[in-house]
Amino acid sequence: MSADVASDKHLHRLILFSDAVFAIAITLLAIEIHPPEHWSTIGELFQRMGYKLAAYAVSFAVVGIYWITHRRMCERLVRADIVLDALNLAMLGLVALLPLGTERLWEHAPAQAILVYVGLVAAIGVASGVMWGYAVFIGKLSEPLPRLEAVFLLLRMILLPGLMSGLSIFSLTYPWGWGLMGLLVAGTAMASRVVRRRSAAPPLAASMATSAASES
Amino acid sequence: MSADVASDKHLHRLILFSDAVFAIAITLLAIEIHPPEHWSTIGELFQRMGYKLAAYAVSFAVVGIYWITHRRMCERLVRADIVLDALNLAMLGLVALLPLGTERLWEHAPAQAILVYVGLVAAIGVASGVMWGYAVFIGKLSEPLPRLEAVFLLLRMILLPGLMSGLSIFSLTYPWGWGLMGLLVAGTAMASRVVRRRSAAPPLAASMATSAASES
Amino acid sequence: MSADVASDKHLHRLILFSDAVFAIAITLLAIEIHPPEHWSTIGELFQRMGYKLAAYAVSFAVVGIYWITHRRMCERLVRADIVLDALNLAMLGLVALLPLGTERLWEHAPAQAILVYVGLVAAIGVASGVMWGYAVFIGKLSEPLPRLEAVFLLLRMILLPGLMSGLSIFSLTYPWGWGLMGLLVAGTAMASRVVRRRSAAPPLAASMATSAASES
Amino acid sequence: MSADVASDKHLHRLILFSDAVFAIAITLLAIEIHPPEHWSTIGELFQRMGYKLAAYAVSFAVVGIYWITHRRMCERLVRADIVLDALNLAMLGLVALLPLGTERLWEHAPAQAILVYVGLVAAIGVASGVMWGYAVFIGKLSEPLPRLEAVFLLLRMILLPGLMSGLSIFSLTYPWGWGLMGLLVAGTAMASRVVRRRSAAPPLAASMATSAASES
Repeated sequence: MSADVASDKHLHRLILFSDAVFAIAITLLAIEIHPPEHWSTIGELFQRMGYKLAAYAVSFAVVGIYWITHRRMCERLVRADIVLDALNLAMLGLVALLPLGTERLWEHAPAQAILVYVGLVAAIGVASGVMWGYAVFIGKLSEPLPRLEAVFLLLRMILLPGLMSGLSIFSLTYPWGWGLMGLLVAGTAMASRVVRRRSAAPPLAASMATSAASES
Repeated sequence: MSADVASDKHLHRLILFSDAVFAIAITLLAIEIHPPEHWSTIGELFQRMGYKLAAYAVSFAVVGIYWITHRRMCERLVRADIVLDALNLAMLGLVALLPLGTERLWEHAPAQAILVYVGLVAAIGVASGVMWGYAVFIGKLSEPLPRLEAVFLLLRMILLPGLMSGLSIFSLTYPWGWGLMGLLVAGTAMASRVVRRRSAAPPLAASMATSAASES
Repeated sequence: MSADVASDKHLHRLILFSDAVFAIAITLLAIEIHPPEHWSTIGELFQRMGYKLAAYAVSFAVVGIYWITHRRMCERLVRADIVLDALNLAMLGLVALLPLGTERLWEHAPAQAILVYVGLVAAIGVASGVMWGYAVFIGKLSEPLPRLEAVFLLLRMILLPGLMSGLSIFSLTYPWGWGLMGLLVAGTAMASRVVRRRSAAPPLAASMATSAASES
Repeated sequence: MSADVASDKHLHRLILFSDAVFAIAITLLAIEIHPPEHWSTIGELFQRMGYKLAAYAVSFAVVGIYWITHRRMCERLVRADIVLDALNLAMLGLVALLPLGTERLWEHAPAQAILVYVGLVAAIGVASGVMWGYAVFIGKLSEPLPRLEAVFLLLRMILLPGLMSGLSIFSLTYPWGWGLMGLLVAGTAMASRVVRRRSAAPPLAASMATSAASES
């Protein structure tokens, strides 16, 4: 019991710290946006800042999605250990580079800069996936979880953010990319539902109901 | 029971993260204020920085008012879901732009810059309103709340901050604007009282007790 | 009971937010320290940065003292209201200006800049005192507290930090100022003890023991 | 009882504040990394930024290790007092200088700059050690702890981070340094195990149970 409390404290502090890093990274995204020196109408202002604001919005969404991913991951965990601390730090270290990557994105619009940016986003996904994989399969830090669901969550964590950020940057140039994005989101949501139903086999029904409720 | 705890955790983490973003945005407001290179007396310093300090004070008050709004909103909620996460992130994304808007305000004092600033403040109000509207009317995330009160809070959230920031900037030029401000604040406070008394009708006494209990 | 819980939540969130602002202000103090472009030995580096580092240390101590003051104040409170929110925001708004004031201090060492700095520090003390005075005497937000102790704490809050920061800057030039500082700290500690003993009259003995313990 | 609650609150707030400072310092490490103005291939970008990214990674690891150290220290504490506040602030004041030290590191690669950096890292270790030493041996703020373990933790806290950061910078130049690092980590882990087994002697079983309970 008391060991549970200590673990709970550890996990709580890991969350406190991570939230602060996410919040700082997401807020710093904005401070590098410097508006043009001279402008006369609001229309002109938005036209000249449009690309910067779009890059800001995409990066804000990326950090937001990883924050949500992190929150969901931690909801499933019941304790933390030092390896999780280290993996979490590595992941946050990549998140903290995003403001920098965003700056690059709007100054060096060409393909190379975008590739670096999407690569960084994908790397955060991989780092989150490693964290989750360790927590569930090696460190046994999570609540009991059907294997199918754990693997599905792992894949979703690793692949989805990279794909979504790549697609959204792509869609800034080719608007029909937003259609693909819709398909991707809808497909993932459907797959989630299927996995959850399959995982909810009788012996696990009780634990599943709980975890499904905790995700809402 | 455990689902309640998980929801409570979700809401708690949303609050932690939001508080950090509010705190960073409010503190960053100050770091762009650079005092003049040369000055000889304190009087001269304040004279030359007066406009910047006024802009800082207004922006600080704006973030403060939205923080209070957010705190009050979250006090009424009993759980959070992923849509609330997304709407909350969108709102914070606008808050994080305020330091930038403030910088604009004091460098491009003319009407256009003020319009952009007031527009941004108003947009945060609308984003808060959308968040509240979703939570109460669609997501059913709040404690039971009389419809009249919910609608009144929605309107106040959307309209008040935009009006107040517009008026306070206006009043920096036309001091009699502060009188209008006083009327606005007094009127809103009176309306709040009326709405609350009306909402506190007998049949709701029970639901109130429930909601009070669910707040623990 | 449930109203107590809501108040407790309100106070908790006010503390969360304030801690984040204090933490950001204290950390930003450092980022404006830019070391000299060229230096050859470590001795030279410290000699050329000595004044900056001393200004940093003083400002860090100032924010730290106000954080401790705030923590102690909040320990005595049992609930918060919207006026406390507003007074707290005003106080934090002055704290957020400290990094700026520090920058001034080391670039414009002359008496005028120091006066502005000490004035700002003193203003934070006054703002804290107003907050405390409201909480205890007007808003009745604190636990029961002997009047003598409440007044003593008010005076200490308002006067001590301004005096200490003034003295420590003074002492950087006139080292014998540190002696005065020692006297000031010792005198305040003695006065605290006298006030506490006097306040601990029989009828209050129980509540006092608790509050004294909670201060350690 | 209520004194326990107050102490617990005090400790909790010290942790909240410290976590925020750690998080800000770790995130600010990144914002001074400015990529080169012009670059054509990703390979060139990484080649030109390699040294900066390595310095970032080392500093991130240093702050991370100190955060873990701080977390572990606080897990063992059951209350806080004002001296602990002051020592904690002093330690955080050094942590907040790390972004600055990192900047120096990659601009003035030569031995002198590295010495300043490693000196700063070691100073944080010493400050943590002083904090721990005060908490355990003087202030009696910790749960009951075998003397051997307390001393071992003190030494590890003071020496390990300085050695590790020194070694990792050394290893950037002389890759065989990583071997020494491995030995250092393995040796410390082994020593930890030995100390823990020795401390877990029968007569302490009771005190352990108590301390576990007091951790809740």
